[in-house]
Amino acid sequence: MSVLEKVNEPKNLKGLTKEELKALAKEINEAVLYKVSNVGGHVGPNLGVTEMTIALHKVFNSPVDKFIWDVSHQTYPHKILTGRKHGFTDGHFHDITPYTSQDESEHDFFTVGHTSTSVANALGYAKARDLTGDKGNVIAILGDGSLSGGLALEAINNAGDFDGNFILIFNDNEMSIAENHGGLYRELAKLRESNGQAEKNLFKAFGLDYKYLEEGNDIEKLTALFEEVKDIDHPIVLHIHTEKGHGYDIATNDKEHWHWRAAFDLETGELKNKPSGKSYSSILMDYMDQQMQAGQPILAINAAIPGAYDLKTFANKYPKNYWDAGIAEQFTITFGGAAALAGAKSFIFHNSTFVQRAFDQFVHDLAINKEPAVVFIKGDVISNSDKTHQGDFARGWISNIPNITYLAPTSEEELLAMLDWSMTYQDGPVVINIPEHGVESRPAHITSFNQAQYDMIKSGQDVALIGLGGLYSHAEKVAEELAKHDINASLINPLFISSLDKKMLDELSESHKVIVTLEDGVLDGGFGQKIASYLGSKDVKVLNYGADKEFNDIVPVAELYKRYRLAPELMTQDILEIL
Amino acid sequence: MSVLEKVNEPKNLKGLTKEELKALAKEINEAVLYKVSNVGGHVGPNLGVTEMTIALHKVFNSPVDKFIWDVSHQTYPHKILTGRKHGFTDGHFHDITPYTSQDESEHDFFTVGHTSTSVANALGYAKARDLTGDKGNVIAILGDGSLSGGLALEAINNAGDFDGNFILIFNDNEMSIAENHGGLYRELAKLRESNGQAEKNLFKAFGLDYKYLEEGNDIEKLTALFEEVKDIDHPIVLHIHTEKGHGYDIATNDKEHWHWRAAFDLETGELKNKPSGKSYSSILMDYMDQQMQAGQPILAINAAIPGAYDLKTFANKYPKNYWDAGIAEQFTITFGGAAALAGAKSFIFHNSTFVQRAFDQFVHDLAINKEPAVVFIKGDVISNSDKTHQGDFARGWISNIPNITYLAPTSEEELLAMLDWSMTYQDGPVVINIPEHGVESRPAHITSFNQAQYDMIKSGQDVALIGLGGLYSHAEKVAEELAKHDINASLINPLFISSLDKKMLDELSESHKVIVTLEDGVLDGGFGQKIASYLGSKDVKVLNYGADKEFNDIVPVAELYKRYRLAPELMTQDILEIL
Repeated sequence: MSVLEKVNEPKNLKGLTKEELKALAKEINEAVLYKVSNVGGHVGPNLGVTEMTIALHKVFNSPVDKFIWDVSHQTYPHKILTGRKHGFTDGHFHDITPYTSQDESEHDFFTVGHTSTSVANALGYAKARDLTGDKGNVIAILGDGSLSGGLALEAINNAGDFDGNFILIFNDNEMSIAENHGGLYRELAKLRESNGQAEKNLFKAFGLDYKYLEEGNDIEKLTALFEEVKDIDHPIVLHIHTEKGHGYDIATNDKEHWHWRAAFDLETGELKNKPSGKSYSSILMDYMDQQMQAGQPILAINAAIPGAYDLKTFANKYPKNYWDAGIAEQFTITFGGAAALAGAKSFIFHNSTFVQRAFDQFVHDLAINKEPAVVFIKGDVISNSDKTHQGDFARGWISNIPNITYLAPTSEEELLAMLDWSMTYQDGPVVINIPEHGVESRPAHITSFNQAQYDMIKSGQDVALIGLGGLYSHAEKVAEELAKHDINASLINPLFISSLDKKMLDELSESHKVIVTLEDGVLDGGFGQKIASYLGSKDVKVLNYGADKEFNDIVPVAELYKRYRLAPELMTQDILEIL
Repeated sequence: MSVLEKVNEPKNLKGLTKEELKALAKEINEAVLYKVSNVGGHVGPNLGVTEMTIALHKVFNSPVDKFIWDVSHQTYPHKILTGRKHGFTDGHFHDITPYTSQDESEHDFFTVGHTSTSVANALGYAKARDLTGDKGNVIAILGDGSLSGGLALEAINNAGDFDGNFILIFNDNEMSIAENHGGLYRELAKLRESNGQAEKNLFKAFGLDYKYLEEGNDIEKLTALFEEVKDIDHPIVLHIHTEKGHGYDIATNDKEHWHWRAAFDLETGELKNKPSGKSYSSILMDYMDQQMQAGQPILAINAAIPGAYDLKTFANKYPKNYWDAGIAEQFTITFGGAAALAGAKSFIFHNSTFVQRAFDQFVHDLAINKEPAVVFIKGDVISNSDKTHQGDFARGWISNIPNITYLAPTSEEELLAMLDWSMTYQDGPVVINIPEHGVESRPAHITSFNQAQYDMIKSGQDVALIGLGGLYSHAEKVAEELAKHDINASLINPLFISSLDKKMLDELSESHKVIVTLEDGVLDGGFGQKIASYLGSKDVKVLNYGADKEFNDIVPVAELYKRYRLAPELMTQDILEIL
């Protein structure tokens, strides 16, 4: 009988011997690797904290003592030890989510997926504990990558004002998703080298007590450290040096590519399904390379996600023209915008779900100052993501900020036309929505984007279908359905998200009975509602299609399309009914 | 002839003697005090940096060398020295804006008003300089209050990776708007006490070079320091200790109240017009006091703006139940939300223009985790603010986030009903929009806010006026105008911003020809457009009234109401035309 077979909840750990705990760590790692090699997932972060997680659950008493994990992509061992090991066996991989979840276990206090939240979340718990007379240790577990995010730094400063029990475990595996960026990481390295003794110590400078542990994958050392600080009466940082991917050599030898991995062969590490073909990322990278060759002062900026856009090739070829800000979305926008104002050509690369962090910087810096940077947004799309990474809100906040030209290409040709135009446009920021349904080819009829101008692809009557960006080709399918009912619908590719082609909308409202909008995300605040409002006083009906305002957790896209009546046959039903 | 009379641009400073520079500082302070005592403005921040500003312009050559100011409420001396001293004399006070402005001078590089931006802005300029082959020193001037903001900390970390000329002046006057909060400030005090020698040094821990100057109001010492670092080839922090309000005893004796001051008597410091009467802030403070007496675990949170809600009385009476996070809006939401989840009753107080910083925390922490905190938003209103403080975007982003109950009371009674309900509601966050047109009295007909339910105040025909929050009484005025034309309009107080009372909207659409919405802010993404979209397929017309999507800089409200056709007679014209 394996040790793991005997462990179903944290209390089962209490009586285990040193040897059993060590065996347990090995078994947990095998379970983690079994799951991620089959269905993909975070590899390095989980393998790195197996020993720490065992020691935490051995010394503390969850859920009376509260572990509050940052990002929570490193909680597979925690899940295995808190009644969820079935999620790591055949047929049950998807029964357990990849992040902590309020709904899944009393040992998970938050549903999280973004970085840098743990210290603020844990301080909130600790403060409430002291106000309500509750008990228990509160323990935040923050990774070194997450430390570069403003929210984490704000919270660490606030922790310096707290006067009760509060333990901040700083899990230092020397890496973010990719390598770390920023001056603090040079000083962290010196702390590691000096066994925590170096003079320059960020945590102490924030007024916090501090201890260092070099052997972060040694259960005995970890247990001793945790025993020492249990029930401490003030905030303390435990700086613990761990190894990302510990115990799986293939992962420790290439930590960046083994942060997250799609399904792979356990023996060789090779991906089971290799990606192929042209992507919008490769189009963007080729374009930047051409512009560099032509002497343009390109500055390619991202916040710790070079892999999302294949930026590393550019970075290696043009290191001076590349800036990875670490997990610091706010900074990328203010910095990139300022550089654009000062004459650089800033291209800023973001994922929709993370760039939300920079809303005020879009308004106050980029837009008010009319900074001619170009921002690319990926993932603003109705998808089967978990709810902490739901990306389809970007249309609903970016399109409501003045001075921003917010564009939605539907094809490679249109994207290139927008890029060419953006190289000379100096009057303000440009945001480009990257469509997510594979690279399409469609000629660019419009090549200047100073003024909103929709592209009328096919002029028909009665029904006008306005399909935005990634849903333009979906509108084509609806048109085909309608044709079966002898309706010759007009088809419009609007290209502009943030401003209306009022001339075309006026004409459409005079010659059509119904105007239908389609967008690949939440309707509230987005594209279609602006058109419904503009046409509210006219004699025409408007139907807006997109997602409801709700969070969805790993729901198949086909189910969502059905729920939102985006499926072509359902839209056709609705349209026929209203005509 | 005074020295200031001879100084019209920075180069006029170059030949001045020590004595003349000292006299100039006194004259600048007199000019600043003359203006602010007449029309109000920032007092302490400006008086504190007069000597620093003189020294900067003496040593460096603006605009080739670039001064990039944080917040920029401390730039009156800079404006006086760069051709704008007329803005400080009778009849011209309003010719010059209170913040730096791209449009106003070649010596201003950004239009700013929010904190913590200067380091990122300056790094962007420095990076672009090095990519384009441009020249000059780039100098950021950051105040100690702004250091607590995540964007500043992200940027300081990134500055540690920069490899060219970059000077960060850290202007330490020992204060934010109010006193500083957070552990870093205790360590800063030790740095000041040790003349910059203390071991715990935040800037060094971020990998930056560092120098300290105690005599931050001494022009000679400042000049010598700046000469020393001019044209430096790497980033350096100059930690300079200044005195807020320097030279005006009344201000140095009460720094918090003299951060910003309405028009006052120069001799006594007394306000020329004293505020009077009941305010929504006093209603909130009384309510919290009652709840504390009743034993509720209230946690009142704000981000360095206790004055905006008169929170200090509560803070002094219940110090354990009060948390000022410093300028750290992101933290307030994650922290307050977590505390609410853990059993505290979090009341989080914000200004609309600043709380934008916390958008991702509203989505990812508060909303996804259904944390039962209550957030109050002030200033989401069409106003004559400068554009960097334009607050009327909040409806357009908060109302598009799932799981949030977003309410707009129109009166004291309604606000109290919402507060009572929020004390027992546990299913998610509540955001309450504070109306800004004075406290009104109007009975609360609705007292449970679990489901969206509009309040039908008067049932009429043909026209339905839906007046949201602060614009409900405006809708009443429109109804009066319409009555003159024999139109008996229905009047609805919707109370809910974020969700629709579909039942009532369906009924209205059947019994009325036109439905008119009024909201006190930008239309895009906000309240009315959701109604227009919902009713898009019905046989009813919809007119949405609110602000256009644009930035406005100190434009009188009456002019804006005219521009947006919100004036009752203009709305009446529109409605009559469409009927």
